Amino acid sequence: MSAPAPRQPPKGTRDFYPPEMAVRRHIEKAWRESSIDHGFDEIDGPTFEHLALYTVKSGDGIINELFSFRRAGGEDDYALRPEFTPTLARMVAARASSLPQPIKWFAIPTHFRAERPQRGRLREFIQWNVDLIGVEGPQAEVDVLSTAVVAMERLGLSHSDVRVKLSHRGVVAAALHALGAQTERLADAFALLDRRDKMEPSEFDARALAIGLGASATTRLAMIARTQLSIESSADTIAGALGCSPTDAQPLVELNQRLISAGLGHWCDLDFGIVRGLAYYTGSVFEVHEASGAERAIAGGGRYDKLIESFGGPSMPAVGFGMGDVVIGLLLRDRGKLPSDDDLTLLPRPDVFLVSAGSPEAEQLLPQLAASMRRAGLHVRHTYKTTRNVGKLLSEAVKCRARHALILGGELEQGMIAWKDLGAGTQSLIPVGEVVARILAVPR
Amino acid sequence: MSAPAPRQPPKGTRDFYPPEMAVRRHIEKAWRESSIDHGFDEIDGPTFEHLALYTVKSGDGIINELFSFRRAGGEDDYALRPEFTPTLARMVAARASSLPQPIKWFAIPTHFRAERPQRGRLREFIQWNVDLIGVEGPQAEVDVLSTAVVAMERLGLSHSDVRVKLSHRGVVAAALHALGAQTERLADAFALLDRRDKMEPSEFDARALAIGLGASATTRLAMIARTQLSIESSADTIAGALGCSPTDAQPLVELNQRLISAGLGHWCDLDFGIVRGLAYYTGSVFEVHEASGAERAIAGGGRYDKLIESFGGPSMPAVGFGMGDVVIGLLLRDRGKLPSDDDLTLLPRPDVFLVSAGSPEAEQLLPQLAASMRRAGLHVRHTYKTTRNVGKLLSEAVKCRARHALILGGELEQGMIAWKDLGAGTQSLIPVGEVVARILAVPR
Repeated sequence: MSAPAPRQPPKGTRDFYPPEMAVRRHIEKAWRESSIDHGFDEIDGPTFEHLALYTVKSGDGIINELFSFRRAGGEDDYALRPEFTPTLARMVAARASSLPQPIKWFAIPTHFRAERPQRGRLREFIQWNVDLIGVEGPQAEVDVLSTAVVAMERLGLSHSDVRVKLSHRGVVAAALHALGAQTERLADAFALLDRRDKMEPSEFDARALAIGLGASATTRLAMIARTQLSIESSADTIAGALGCSPTDAQPLVELNQRLISAGLGHWCDLDFGIVRGLAYYTGSVFEVHEASGAERAIAGGGRYDKLIESFGGPSMPAVGFGMGDVVIGLLLRDRGKLPSDDDLTLLPRPDVFLVSAGSPEAEQLLPQLAASMRRAGLHVRHTYKTTRNVGKLLSEAVKCRARHALILGGELEQGMIAWKDLGAGTQSLIPVGEVVARILAVPR
Repeated sequence: MSAPAPRQPPKGTRDFYPPEMAVRRHIEKAWRESSIDHGFDEIDGPTFEHLALYTVKSGDGIINELFSFRRAGGEDDYALRPEFTPTLARMVAARASSLPQPIKWFAIPTHFRAERPQRGRLREFIQWNVDLIGVEGPQAEVDVLSTAVVAMERLGLSHSDVRVKLSHRGVVAAALHALGAQTERLADAFALLDRRDKMEPSEFDARALAIGLGASATTRLAMIARTQLSIESSADTIAGALGCSPTDAQPLVELNQRLISAGLGHWCDLDFGIVRGLAYYTGSVFEVHEASGAERAIAGGGRYDKLIESFGGPSMPAVGFGMGDVVIGLLLRDRGKLPSDDDLTLLPRPDVFLVSAGSPEAEQLLPQLAASMRRAGLHVRHTYKTTRNVGKLLSEAVKCRARHALILGGELEQGMIAWKDLGAGTQSLIPVGEVVARILAVPR
């Protein structure tokens, strides 16, 4: 009890002072509005779940990064949620028979990973999740990708700033098969591809051999991971590049054509190095990246047609993605799409700033006037200082960018208030009883 | 890995399906908009903090209810935040010299308490926090209470539904002094008052004796805790009821007069049974209750002038309150101020619902049209089914309460789309190229 109180937030977590919170709400607003415009409804789940929810399907990458705990005296193991998809799958499985279909949900929850904090990666972060469940065809991918793209457009980013990188596990699996990979080792092959940049070439070769790939097949595998093609590529082109059959490439070509139809083609590239670390993807996989390849992925997702079933629900096709707030925040700042720290222009602008010159009548009137304007839906700030230096108090009004200033000064004796329209730069005297109506009459 | 995945959220936590989430956002919207209209800026902090942040000042009531944990291999002890005030005090203390004053902040974070779940109390809940730091006078209390009241008004509650119950630790301390309580045992006396309903009379008497109160003083103490007076009471009336001097009662009387001035008088009662469990309050304390006294407190707060200093900041006066989402949600539901579970009228209404009769041209046009309408800011849903039974598909449009339905049917051969204004009940044919402009021209 005698140690001083901590001054800093825990490592890898953030304090959101008003300017940082305004940036967060600005990003969340674009996420939320694009979701709603695309017909997704908002959901949320618990911040912590039973630990078992994550040991079932998420894969080792996430298990090692869990913050887990028990209640003192309790017997259940819990973990702070590292991602949203297990919660989503649980919620769908629990009510699959009664939910209207297709299920179109989005969420903007907080997530936690006990990893080493670095640029673009924190221990606590906010992640937008968009999921469409119950649609087999590629229109599902088109809808979730369009939701991501429209949100980024509304944040001021264009297809020269960010690129959607697409691959397809089915197509890559066919290519791996053609190279000699064993069917039962495909999951290991994807995990190997995903982690290829994190190991020495010798380790990569040894693991490829364990999967059934000889030296030349391993060279081909590394080449596949470097293959990038236009979204307009034909099935023959894709098949030629990957070494699979054109029929194998067909599902990806159909998706590409739909994306082009929906006006998303110029945002997208094929990139067969995109794998996604999570084990549960079954078809398309995609990531959004900064155009030059700088920074970590801005978003990632894909199709996971077996996951709902594995959580005890019915068999249901599903597509979804997650976009964290950290990398997109860095990108928006770097591109000048956000106000700087000092510039609070994302904070809401007051409609009215009230100044009292300090007389007893003014002090009595100020809270009354503020209350009636707030009941009328106006954003009202006022000074807490009492000084006759009204000019100094007015500078507060200008600083917070109020639209109007009202000065409760000497004119109160005649029942009048001085009104400054700070936008128009005009000033006039108005009767106390007309103030609310007059302010409401000025368009915002 | 072989056990089935959990189907339920952890005990005391909630899944928010779209109808529950719509209710949560409805409540949060009233909280946020009232905060902004009163000139508060939004902040947030980490979901977990260093455990030491809570062992410093919160009092035993909260310490026993913490969810605490360590990172595997880490050395720091953390706890999920049980309340927001310690985070707020830490954030203020860390930047007190550079923050513009007064500091007016609100937050809507998630909180966690490892207690037994019961009606109105969960292990995870959302709590609105409003704090005003740097103002000594009672205008600070008026502003935070007005923020609470305006939010409740906007949720449809009136002063016959809920009451603000006010007390003042300074005034009650004077009364305790007059009864013989020792100055250095005042904190114990407040803790005793706060927990009086949770102990046997014999235990109450024994503890009162330890504080320095004899039998008759203990009877008087119990009477003080049952004292309720009008907000318009004079200093003499309050002094007479509590057994302190009128001078002691003056700070409360000044607060009451300010509240009446600001039009809040008819929402408020004096209730000297209000103590608040947290140790850090130094002056006014208040709770919001359902008018008949049913349910737990809807909100609680007060003045905490020493807290910022105790977290290593400068000495700064402060007033704030917290309002959880659980009790107010129960109350709104009980009073019929929320749609029922089946009625989704809080969910956003689509502007347009697109239906395709299934021709190749319609299937090609649907994603294009959806994309251009969404870029124009419209909320667009569409069917994922392909059937010629357009009537059945239109029922989906009606079910989600879309404003307009567009049918991509046989008229497409002539470049026309059937447009149903579902509000006005009219139907007409419009050229494909004019659709977006025509929909935008109809006022929402």
